[in-house]
Amino acid sequence: MTEDELKEECGVFGIYGHPEAARLTYLGLYALQHRGQEAAGICSSDGQRLYVERGMGYVADVFEEARLDRLQGEAAIGHVRYATAGESSLDNAQPMLISGGRGQVALGHNGNLIGVPALRAELEAQGAVFHSTSDTEIILHRLARSRQPDLEGAITEALGSVTGAYSLIFQTADRVIAVRDPYGFRPLCLGRLNGDRPATVFASETCAFDLIDAEYVRDVAPGEMVIADRQGLRSVRYAPAERPAFCAFEHIYFARPDSRVFGRSVMLNRTALGRQLAREAPADADVVVPIPDSGMPAAAGYAAESGLPMEFGLIRNHYVGRTFIEPKQSIRNFGVKVKLNPVRELLQGRRVVLVDDSIVRGTTSRKIVQMVRAAGARQVHMRISSPPIISPCYYGIDTPTREELIAASHSVDEVRRYIEADSLAYLSHEGLLRALENGERQYCISCFTGQYPTRINV
Amino acid sequence: MTEDELKEECGVFGIYGHPEAARLTYLGLYALQHRGQEAAGICSSDGQRLYVERGMGYVADVFEEARLDRLQGEAAIGHVRYATAGESSLDNAQPMLISGGRGQVALGHNGNLIGVPALRAELEAQGAVFHSTSDTEIILHRLARSRQPDLEGAITEALGSVTGAYSLIFQTADRVIAVRDPYGFRPLCLGRLNGDRPATVFASETCAFDLIDAEYVRDVAPGEMVIADRQGLRSVRYAPAERPAFCAFEHIYFARPDSRVFGRSVMLNRTALGRQLAREAPADADVVVPIPDSGMPAAAGYAAESGLPMEFGLIRNHYVGRTFIEPKQSIRNFGVKVKLNPVRELLQGRRVVLVDDSIVRGTTSRKIVQMVRAAGARQVHMRISSPPIISPCYYGIDTPTREELIAASHSVDEVRRYIEADSLAYLSHEGLLRALENGERQYCISCFTGQYPTRINV
Amino acid sequence: MTEDELKEECGVFGIYGHPEAARLTYLGLYALQHRGQEAAGICSSDGQRLYVERGMGYVADVFEEARLDRLQGEAAIGHVRYATAGESSLDNAQPMLISGGRGQVALGHNGNLIGVPALRAELEAQGAVFHSTSDTEIILHRLARSRQPDLEGAITEALGSVTGAYSLIFQTADRVIAVRDPYGFRPLCLGRLNGDRPATVFASETCAFDLIDAEYVRDVAPGEMVIADRQGLRSVRYAPAERPAFCAFEHIYFARPDSRVFGRSVMLNRTALGRQLAREAPADADVVVPIPDSGMPAAAGYAAESGLPMEFGLIRNHYVGRTFIEPKQSIRNFGVKVKLNPVRELLQGRRVVLVDDSIVRGTTSRKIVQMVRAAGARQVHMRISSPPIISPCYYGIDTPTREELIAASHSVDEVRRYIEADSLAYLSHEGLLRALENGERQYCISCFTGQYPTRINV
Amino acid sequence: MTEDELKEECGVFGIYGHPEAARLTYLGLYALQHRGQEAAGICSSDGQRLYVERGMGYVADVFEEARLDRLQGEAAIGHVRYATAGESSLDNAQPMLISGGRGQVALGHNGNLIGVPALRAELEAQGAVFHSTSDTEIILHRLARSRQPDLEGAITEALGSVTGAYSLIFQTADRVIAVRDPYGFRPLCLGRLNGDRPATVFASETCAFDLIDAEYVRDVAPGEMVIADRQGLRSVRYAPAERPAFCAFEHIYFARPDSRVFGRSVMLNRTALGRQLAREAPADADVVVPIPDSGMPAAAGYAAESGLPMEFGLIRNHYVGRTFIEPKQSIRNFGVKVKLNPVRELLQGRRVVLVDDSIVRGTTSRKIVQMVRAAGARQVHMRISSPPIISPCYYGIDTPTREELIAASHSVDEVRRYIEADSLAYLSHEGLLRALENGERQYCISCFTGQYPTRINV
Repeated sequence: MTEDELKEECGVFGIYGHPEAARLTYLGLYALQHRGQEAAGICSSDGQRLYVERGMGYVADVFEEARLDRLQGEAAIGHVRYATAGESSLDNAQPMLISGGRGQVALGHNGNLIGVPALRAELEAQGAVFHSTSDTEIILHRLARSRQPDLEGAITEALGSVTGAYSLIFQTADRVIAVRDPYGFRPLCLGRLNGDRPATVFASETCAFDLIDAEYVRDVAPGEMVIADRQGLRSVRYAPAERPAFCAFEHIYFARPDSRVFGRSVMLNRTALGRQLAREAPADADVVVPIPDSGMPAAAGYAAESGLPMEFGLIRNHYVGRTFIEPKQSIRNFGVKVKLNPVRELLQGRRVVLVDDSIVRGTTSRKIVQMVRAAGARQVHMRISSPPIISPCYYGIDTPTREELIAASHSVDEVRRYIEADSLAYLSHEGLLRALENGERQYCISCFTGQYPTRINV
Repeated sequence: MTEDELKEECGVFGIYGHPEAARLTYLGLYALQHRGQEAAGICSSDGQRLYVERGMGYVADVFEEARLDRLQGEAAIGHVRYATAGESSLDNAQPMLISGGRGQVALGHNGNLIGVPALRAELEAQGAVFHSTSDTEIILHRLARSRQPDLEGAITEALGSVTGAYSLIFQTADRVIAVRDPYGFRPLCLGRLNGDRPATVFASETCAFDLIDAEYVRDVAPGEMVIADRQGLRSVRYAPAERPAFCAFEHIYFARPDSRVFGRSVMLNRTALGRQLAREAPADADVVVPIPDSGMPAAAGYAAESGLPMEFGLIRNHYVGRTFIEPKQSIRNFGVKVKLNPVRELLQGRRVVLVDDSIVRGTTSRKIVQMVRAAGARQVHMRISSPPIISPCYYGIDTPTREELIAASHSVDEVRRYIEADSLAYLSHEGLLRALENGERQYCISCFTGQYPTRINV
Repeated sequence: MTEDELKEECGVFGIYGHPEAARLTYLGLYALQHRGQEAAGICSSDGQRLYVERGMGYVADVFEEARLDRLQGEAAIGHVRYATAGESSLDNAQPMLISGGRGQVALGHNGNLIGVPALRAELEAQGAVFHSTSDTEIILHRLARSRQPDLEGAITEALGSVTGAYSLIFQTADRVIAVRDPYGFRPLCLGRLNGDRPATVFASETCAFDLIDAEYVRDVAPGEMVIADRQGLRSVRYAPAERPAFCAFEHIYFARPDSRVFGRSVMLNRTALGRQLAREAPADADVVVPIPDSGMPAAAGYAAESGLPMEFGLIRNHYVGRTFIEPKQSIRNFGVKVKLNPVRELLQGRRVVLVDDSIVRGTTSRKIVQMVRAAGARQVHMRISSPPIISPCYYGIDTPTREELIAASHSVDEVRRYIEADSLAYLSHEGLLRALENGERQYCISCFTGQYPTRINV
Repeated sequence: MTEDELKEECGVFGIYGHPEAARLTYLGLYALQHRGQEAAGICSSDGQRLYVERGMGYVADVFEEARLDRLQGEAAIGHVRYATAGESSLDNAQPMLISGGRGQVALGHNGNLIGVPALRAELEAQGAVFHSTSDTEIILHRLARSRQPDLEGAITEALGSVTGAYSLIFQTADRVIAVRDPYGFRPLCLGRLNGDRPATVFASETCAFDLIDAEYVRDVAPGEMVIADRQGLRSVRYAPAERPAFCAFEHIYFARPDSRVFGRSVMLNRTALGRQLAREAPADADVVVPIPDSGMPAAAGYAAESGLPMEFGLIRNHYVGRTFIEPKQSIRNFGVKVKLNPVRELLQGRRVVLVDDSIVRGTTSRKIVQMVRAAGARQVHMRISSPPIISPCYYGIDTPTREELIAASHSVDEVRRYIEADSLAYLSHEGLLRALENGERQYCISCFTGQYPTRINV
C-alpha cells in the first residue's frame, strides 16, 4: 500500500523530568513521523507556564533550533498528525493548548471519538465556543466543565461522557498524564529514560524510545491513566477495561516494523501474516516480489513458507516530495511510477507473486500489476496479507467511504479482474487473528467484518 | 515619534455585498497597515460557511493570490494587529473564528476591555475554555452564553457585561455587524461602495475607503450597532451613549493624515496643533525642522504660525526592514540613525526648532537632539504638539508602564535636560482641546491627565 | 516621480582595514538601498581568499547573520542593483567574482559602458567566455587579458579600451581599488572611518558614510584610481580627465537628499531647483503641494520663493510591498492610489500647484492630476523642477525608449493637455544649470538635450 | 553504506525534439536524484536562445510550475549535483551556461578531469576568466578558444586537450550533444521517446527513461559524440576508444538497482556480488541481515547462495531531513540511529551476518555493529560485497583522503577489531570482476587497487 491510501491520524509523545524535554520530544516525534506527516507540534512546561510551537509539515521542517529553545522546561508533549488542506488547518494542529479554570491544559490525541456532532451540539447549547473542528476540543470542554476538584477526577468525568478511540497525552504546568481508552484501540507505551534522574516517557510506538535510548516498560493499559509528576509515577484505572479491541491495522500496515505494538513485535507479526498467507493461498510461481516498503516483511514470510525465492523486483524512489509537478502528456501509470520502478531483468518471462499488505481502492494495485506485466512478467499473482476491507474505520484511520472501498462492493474475483491479476488471494479473518496472536481474540478487525466493538452513530 | 514607541493595537475592516469581498478587504487592510504591522487576517463568508486566513507580517506578505482565492463569498471582515513575539502568537491573530450554538462567528476587535482577569476568571469558573490570551475571546464567550434568541440581542447582552474600548466587526454566515463602544474611544466609519449593487463597508479610518473608491457616509456612533445583511442596513442603539471619549492620540499620532477620524480631518487637526503650539511656545530660532514622518504636519503648522521657514533637515530611510543586523562596534545613536539622517548643510550654524508629536521615554528624542547638534546646529529647541504623557492608556494603545514614561516622573525642565535640548515646550491641555475642536470636550486625554472616563481596575 | 519610472542602475560601497568589514558594507548598502532594490551582494577578503554572497531582494532580506559571518576578513566591497526579471538574473548580480591569471578579482560597477555589443564580439572572437549579460564582465575580461605586470597597470589598460560611465570598486585578496571614469558621470566618494586603526571607505553617496560614522574626505576624481592596501592609500591618475559630465539627475531625483554628491548638498540643490522654478514659472494659485517623496524639497523651494503656503495635500503609503495583489474590478487610478492618497480637506476648492521633479511617460502625472481634481481642487498647475526629458540615458539610468518619453514627441502644451493640468511648466536648461552650481558647466544633461558627451554607438 | 560516506558527483539528462522538454527533464532529474542531492538545474532552448534555472536542493524543491514554465522550447538538458557548502556554490551549479563566439552554450558534466590546476593555470595565463571552481568550465573555455569552424570539431579539439572522466551533455540554440570520454568511466545512455514525433533522450541511467516511458536504445560509447538536431541523430567518434574503464562502484553502490548501467542490470549484478561473497566468505550463522537500503540486493544474493534466511533486522527511517537538530545529551550511536533502528526480536540471541556494499571510514560500520549487538545479537559477522577501498577516486566520486580510508592503512583483521565484528570479509578483486561480468576486464577498480587507467597528476 502507498501512504496516500490509508492515513493514520496521529502519533503522540510525552516526557516528564528531563532537562532536554523538548528536544527529546522532537526526536520522539521524528521517530513517529510515519504516523502523521502534515503537521507537528510540541508543548512544554517549565513548571509555571506552558509553551507551544506548531506548524504544517515534517517534524524536521517545523522545528528549528530557535523554536526548540523557546520550549523551556523539563516536561513536554508532542504530536504529529494528518490534516486537511490549507494553512488555516493550523487551528487543528496539536497539542491543543487551552486555558480555563484549571489553568493551562495541553492535549495531544491519537484516535477518533464516536458521535462527535451530538457531543458538540450539546456543548454548544451550553455556551461552549469551539476554535477547531477537532474532536479533541470536546474532551477539553468536558474537562473544563467538570466540577471534580482534582485534575484526574475531572479527566475521568470528562472521558466518562465520550466513546471511541483515544490515546491521550495531557500536560499541565506540573504534570504529564497518559490515558488510553477502555478498548485500547490505539497503542500507547510507557518507558523510562535512565540518567542522573530517571525520566518518564510515553509514546505511540516503541521506536520512539529506541531513538532516545529509553527503555520500554509496558503498555499503558486500556482504561488506565498514568500520571507523571514530582511525586513520581501513579496509575489510576479511570474506567473498567472493555474486551480489548487493538487495531489490527497497526500490525498490518501502520506501525513501524521495528516497533513493538500491543506487546508484540510488528516485524514478527508482519512476517507471520506472510507465512499464514502462503499456507492459505500458495501460488504456482517462480518468484516472490514485495511491493515496497510496506509489503516487504509479509513477502519475506510468504517466500520463506512457500520456498519460493524473494527478489526485489520493484524499486522505490525515496526522494518523493510532496509537491510534484506532473507532465502534461500522459505517461503510463505515472502516479505509481513516480514511486516505484520495476526491475525488468528480474521480472521478464517469470511467474511473479506480488505481496502487499492491503488493497483499498484497487487503483494502485491495478497500476502496479500493469507495470509488472509491461516489464515482462508472464503471470502476476497478487497476495494480500490481510482480509478484504469492506467497511470504514471509525477509530482513527482515515479510510475512504464505503463506496470507494473496492472490496465493499466487489467479490474477490471481481477485484482480481479489475486489477488485472492472474490470481488474487487475501488472508482469511481466522488466518489474520491466528497470525497476530496465539491466545484469545483481542483485535479490532471491524474494517474487515463491518462489526464494530462500540456503537458508531457518527 | 517612531513607531517603536507607541503602538496602536489594531485596525478593522468589513464589507457586505460585493463579489470581490476578500480582495477589497485586503486593500482596506493595506490602507490600515499603519494601525498594526505584525499580523493580518481576513475572514469571508459565502452565505453558508466562513473561511479564514491569518498570518504574521505585513498584509502584502501574508496574502498571496491563492490565499485570497480561498476566501470565497460576498462578505468579509479583516484585521491588522500588533502581536507579541513568536509564531505561536498566531493564536492571538484575528479575526478570531469560533463555532458555537449560533454557528460560526468571526470577530475583529480594535480596543481594549477593562478588568480582563476578572472577566476571564468568571468565565473559566463556569467551564469556559480559552484558546488565546486576547480579551476579544471574552466577548465571544459572553456571546455564546447569551440566551437571547437573536444575534443582535445576544451581542447587546454580551457587551452589557464588559467595559472598555471596542470597535468591533462581527461576521456570521449571513451578515456583518459593526459595533462601537458607548464612549467611542476608537474610530469606526461606515461607507458605501457604489456599483451594480451598492455594498456596505466599515473601516477604522476613511483612508481605507479612499483606496477602494468607497464613499464615507458617517461614523458608527458610540453605543451603536450597524447590521448589514440581505435585508439591507439596520442600526440598533444597543447601549446608551456615554459622554464621548474619542482618543486624542488618533489625531495627534496614530491615524493616517489623509484620514478623517471622529468626523475631522487628521491633517487639518495636526496642522492646527502645530499652530497652537507656535502660539503657546514660540522659539527664537532660524528654522523649523520636522521629525519625519509624524512630526511633519505639526511642523508645517508651527512654521506657518511662527513665520519661520520649515526645512527638511532630517531625512527618513524608508527601507527599514524588521530584521536589521547591527554592527558589533558601537556607532553613535545607531538605532535612530538607521531611520533618520540629518542634512548637515541645512542645520549647520543654525538655531533649530525640532517639532515632534510626542515624547514617550525620551531616549529617541535625546538621540535626535544629539544627532542634530552633531550635524552643526547652534541651538536645538524641541517643541511637542501634545502635552506630557504621564499615565498609561487602557483603551487600546500599547503605552509603556508609568515608570518608563519620562514625563510621569520628571518635570518639563528635567526632560529638557535629559534630552539635552536648549529649550523644550509641550502643548497645553487646553491648547490641545482647542486645536482639535471648537465645541465641547469630547476627547479622552487620560494619558495626559491620569483621569479616566471609566473605572480601570485592570 | 515614482520609483517605477526611472531606475538608477546601482550603488557601490567598499571598505579596507576594518575587522567588521562585511557588516559595515551591509550598513553602507543599506543606506544606498534607494540606488538599487532588486539584488544585493557583498564580497570580502581575509587577505588570502575572497568570499561572496549575493541574492535577489533588499539588503536586509538578502543578508542574515549566518551569511554575514561567512564574509570573513578586514576588507569588503558591496553592490546594490536593479536586475531583470527571474531568479537566473542572479548571474548578473554583483560584485562579480572571477578567478584568472591575477588570482581572484571581484568588481562592483555603477554606470554603463558604451558600445557593449562590439566590445563583447571582439572578446568572444578571441575565445572569451561570458557568464552574464552584464557590461561589467567586459572589464574583467579586459583586465585578465592585459599583459601589464601589476594590477593597477592592467586596470589602466583595460579601461583604456572602453568608454562610458563607470564608478568601480575592485577587490583582490590584498586590496580595494576605487575607479571613476574620466567624465565622472556617476558619483563616488572617499571617506575615513576613525578607530584604533583608521579604515578607508568608498561609497556612491555620503549618506552611507553617515550611517557608519565615517567622515567624508573627498570625491574620487574623474580619471582617478584610489588604491587602499597594507601600504595605505595611493592615488593614480590612470586617464586624463575629460570635461566633467556629472549626471544632473543625481541631484534632481536619484541621490538621497541627505547626501552630498559631486561636492554639493543634494537637498540644497533640490530646493534651489524649486526656487528657480518659481522664478521661471510662477502660478496664480492658493497652495503648493509636493508630490511625495521626491518632489518635497523642490516644492519647499517653490513655496519659499513664491510666498505661497506649502501643504501636504498628498500622503504617501510607505508600506508598499513588491508583490501587490490587484482587485479584478476597476478602481480609478488604482496604480497611483496604492502609493498616494489626497487630503481632500486641503485641496477642496483650491488652486493647487503640484511640484514634481520630472515627467517620464506622463501616465503617472495624469493620474495624480485626476486624483487631485477628484479631491476637489479648483485648478491644478503642474510644475516640474527639471527640463523635459527628450532622449534616453546611456550612462546608467534605465530610461524608457524615446518612444515612451512623452516629451520626446510632444510639446509642453500637448503634455499639459495629456496630463489634464490647467497649466504646466518645466525648468529651463539654463535654470537647471544655474540652480545646480554657480560656476562653469560640469553637468551631463544629455537626457534633456539629446547631446551626449561621448559617442553613443550602442 | 550511508549516503554521507561516498558521494557521486552528478547525474545528467538531455532531450531533443519534445514540446514538454523541460518538464521531462525535470522528471528525468527526479529519477536521477540519488546521483546528486545538493543542486539541480535545467537549461532549455526554444531554437533561438537558451533559458536556465538552477537552485540548491532537491529537484522537487528547486523547480515549481512557474520556473518550469520559463524554460521554453523543445530541447533541454539537466543536471543534479553535490556541491560544497554555502549558497554561493550556486556559482558551481550546472548546467553551466556561457556565451561566446559560438553563441550560447550550456554544459552538464558528470565526472572529473585530471590535472585541473595546470589546465586552469594555462588558460588563466592566456587571459581566461573563471566564474566557478568547477573543472567543467575548463571544457567551455577550451571550446571557446578552438578555431574549428563547426561545433563538433571544436568539442573534439577541446576534449583533445583534457584527460579524465566525463559524460557530457552540451546544448546550443539548435542542438543537444552527448559525449562520453574514451574510457567510459561514467555511464551515459541513449534512448528514444515515441510519440507523434519521436524524441531523443540521454541520461546517466536508464531509470530516467523508465519514468518518462522512453525506450533504452544503447549506451553512448566511450569516445563517441552523439548529436541530436533538426537533421536527426548523428554519431561521431571524436577520439579512439581506450580499453574500457567502467566504474565498478556504479554497480556496487551508486546506480539505482532498477537501472541498466554499462549494459548490465544493476540489480542482477548486485545480487551476483552477494552470491560470490557467500561463496568466498561463508559464515556459521543463523540469519542474514542487510544494511538498508544499499546492502539489500547483495544480502539477498548472500542468503540465496548460503541457504541462510534473510530477515529485515535493521529498519531505515526514510524521513531523514537535511537539517536535523541533535540533542545536547549523548545518545549512543545517535548518528546511525537517526537512520537505522534494529528489530530486537529478530536479532536477539542470534548469530547475525550483516551484509553491506562497502566500508569507507569504518565509523558507521562500527556503530551499526554496536547497535546490532546491543539489540541482543550473539555474534556479528560483517560481509562486504566489494574489496577494501585503499585509494581515492579521481574520476568523479567524492572519496575521502587516503588517510581517512580505513582499509588504506589497516589490515582486514585490524578493521574487524575496529568495527568490533566477530568476523569480517570483503569480496576479492577476482570475485568482483567475475560477478560483474563474464568476459574480459572492462572495469575501473582503481579505488581497490591503487592502479589508475590514466595518469593522475592531480
